[in-house]
Amino acid sequence: MELSEPFAQTRALYERKGFGRGRVGFGHHPALLVVDLARAWTDPASPLGSNLDSVLERTMSLLEVARRRRVPVTFTVTAYEASFNDVPPIMLQKLPHRRVLVVGSEWVALHPGLARRETEPLIVKKHTSCFADTPLMSQLASRGTDTLIVTGCSTSGCIRATVEDSFRFGLRTIVPAEAVGDRSRQAHEANLFDIDARYADVVPCDEVLAYLAGVNGIA
Amino acid sequence: MELSEPFAQTRALYERKGFGRGRVGFGHHPALLVVDLARAWTDPASPLGSNLDSVLERTMSLLEVARRRRVPVTFTVTAYEASFNDVPPIMLQKLPHRRVLVVGSEWVALHPGLARRETEPLIVKKHTSCFADTPLMSQLASRGTDTLIVTGCSTSGCIRATVEDSFRFGLRTIVPAEAVGDRSRQAHEANLFDIDARYADVVPCDEVLAYLAGVNGIA
Amino acid sequence: MELSEPFAQTRALYERKGFGRGRVGFGHHPALLVVDLARAWTDPASPLGSNLDSVLERTMSLLEVARRRRVPVTFTVTAYEASFNDVPPIMLQKLPHRRVLVVGSEWVALHPGLARRETEPLIVKKHTSCFADTPLMSQLASRGTDTLIVTGCSTSGCIRATVEDSFRFGLRTIVPAEAVGDRSRQAHEANLFDIDARYADVVPCDEVLAYLAGVNGIA
Amino acid sequence: MELSEPFAQTRALYERKGFGRGRVGFGHHPALLVVDLARAWTDPASPLGSNLDSVLERTMSLLEVARRRRVPVTFTVTAYEASFNDVPPIMLQKLPHRRVLVVGSEWVALHPGLARRETEPLIVKKHTSCFADTPLMSQLASRGTDTLIVTGCSTSGCIRATVEDSFRFGLRTIVPAEAVGDRSRQAHEANLFDIDARYADVVPCDEVLAYLAGVNGIA
Repeated sequence: MELSEPFAQTRALYERKGFGRGRVGFGHHPALLVVDLARAWTDPASPLGSNLDSVLERTMSLLEVARRRRVPVTFTVTAYEASFNDVPPIMLQKLPHRRVLVVGSEWVALHPGLARRETEPLIVKKHTSCFADTPLMSQLASRGTDTLIVTGCSTSGCIRATVEDSFRFGLRTIVPAEAVGDRSRQAHEANLFDIDARYADVVPCDEVLAYLAGVNGIA
Repeated sequence: MELSEPFAQTRALYERKGFGRGRVGFGHHPALLVVDLARAWTDPASPLGSNLDSVLERTMSLLEVARRRRVPVTFTVTAYEASFNDVPPIMLQKLPHRRVLVVGSEWVALHPGLARRETEPLIVKKHTSCFADTPLMSQLASRGTDTLIVTGCSTSGCIRATVEDSFRFGLRTIVPAEAVGDRSRQAHEANLFDIDARYADVVPCDEVLAYLAGVNGIA
Repeated sequence: MELSEPFAQTRALYERKGFGRGRVGFGHHPALLVVDLARAWTDPASPLGSNLDSVLERTMSLLEVARRRRVPVTFTVTAYEASFNDVPPIMLQKLPHRRVLVVGSEWVALHPGLARRETEPLIVKKHTSCFADTPLMSQLASRGTDTLIVTGCSTSGCIRATVEDSFRFGLRTIVPAEAVGDRSRQAHEANLFDIDARYADVVPCDEVLAYLAGVNGIA
Repeated sequence: MELSEPFAQTRALYERKGFGRGRVGFGHHPALLVVDLARAWTDPASPLGSNLDSVLERTMSLLEVARRRRVPVTFTVTAYEASFNDVPPIMLQKLPHRRVLVVGSEWVALHPGLARRETEPLIVKKHTSCFADTPLMSQLASRGTDTLIVTGCSTSGCIRATVEDSFRFGLRTIVPAEAVGDRSRQAHEANLFDIDARYADVVPCDEVLAYLAGVNGIA
């Protein structure tokens, strides 16, 4: 990644400490995870939204290759019962803007350009991490997944938390830099920096496309 | 929190969106969690270390009140078997500086100033989150904890990940700003900002001290 | 519990070992969990079903008191996407009879006699344990629950697995004997015996009704 | 399995329902899990113990082949801090006989005949399930494990709970019938029956030995 001034200083500090340049690399059995690319986030008119057009475009390129190479694809969306009784009450207290994220509403419909197929799981999740209180790890483990490619939004929320859990479960975790986005440029950069230093390899999207093109997915 | 320039812009954006100012407040049954204040992090000569003297001092003040009011205290440290066969192999590949964190070594001994008591659990953890693959949630739930006060280090690693999981479990999560630290000032600020916007209330340490002083802990 | 011959021998063995008579008792903040009382299990004509009329009747009595005393109530049902891509493929291989458990189908509709209210969460789960990959623990912890009363079916499947996880999380776990059921009498008895020896207090339903009648639930 | 009278009736019922005969079979990437074969359980003089000599012998045979074929091996033992502050207080209330299971004591030392190697992880766990609050799933997932062979004790406690979680994570779970044991013959049989009907394939030990002999483990 190119780094703006404050991150360059931190990286210099990390390098003196021998911290932050470890690479996990690609494994042999990848899966593609597309996080929360639904209207609430992709429509700038939404209270949570911003312009994520280029993130969507890059994700669609990744989807195209993944489907061609039979690499498993999973989608997620954060959504709640209309009563919000499916989450602790403090969730809405801390994050009142999530009040629009109701199961079945237009706000939580995936962007139509993603063209999710029936065979591609859609996980409805309650927390930022796609692993928290969901069957994601079961799905990945049962397919022998060793590499998880994470795209979507938001870098400072669901992407960050998902990548932390993915690393914890021992998955080689890859973030294609241009295929994740955030409403705040500052939060995006700061979190990509932390993610790359601690949990996942942040790499150019083209590198991930080239890798996927050479993979043989499900037999 | 006072904010430097880039965060002020992000906060302005968040406020236009109605995002990031939700408060969870204090509950009635707090616990104090002291994260990774061991020599590997508190000794500036360690590959992972930096000067955390003021963080230690603030944490000791919080400990003093918590013990006086009989508020449950838990400590954690990240440590591994000498063979490192207790974690996925990619952990060391990504974070080679963790090679010093061996169970029983001087690097993972808690700072003596904390004076941990036998009755205060010490959780040896493998991941950044204190909840991941540990009995922490069992311990907190069985005591009826509704409020978790998180101190220690590092803000951009274990504090951030712990606070995410604490919020997910519905605990009112409180971060006393001066009682958490990080080797990088930039990473510290960026993560405190995200934590306050998304998962926990970041408040002055004095406010937490005043709250604890009025609590009746374990009967 | 009254015990048939083989269990009486095992109990005698356990007693010589000082094993199996520990009691957890009731706490102060109970919640009521009603497990899988949907048509697939309550209709004897279903491939998974059997006559659970008395279990339903007892559960309705518990519900009546719980609602009156404002004790939190949660329902669960096991159900899958029609594609079954939300669970590992071996699930259907091992348990092909679960093929009927499709989200939205008549088989997974709760028994109408339970009259679930909008404010009572319904958790759609994938596994036998109501805690596995669901937000149940978050919901309970955020309410300060210390006692979980478990009713429904099947004793040898979802009840057993749920009670194991409930105990692990430190909740005082109570099974009203007549309010849980199973298609097999033998499996029912053997599992109630194990549950009582290891994880929860199995007590007469009337004792639980009397306890609930004296509780002050949510303020 | 050969079945005594009450189980035969239940199996007949299950067969009429199309329930309980699903097979998961062996996969390509097995791991061997050896559960709690420490002195507290293998020494008949222990409050928790019984004669498990044949279980030990069978497990050693499995270990010999697994090591020869480079199949990953993991051991577990249930053990607590001397203060027991690492688990919810109700654990000892329900299971007072666990008071002897203190970290570092002779009771929790693995049986010397198992000859654990330094490279074979030993997981110190708090609950019956080897997956609960431990890094087991991370270890298995990071090695691409698709098949888990479970041996040790007790069938009605740790084996049953571990197998439930293993199935939930989508692992093909195999129980070699003669390599698991229990202090109670009745509890052993009842739980093997449930395990085979719901979560894992219970097969003769010789079948597992033959399978392992043909496997190529870690490259």
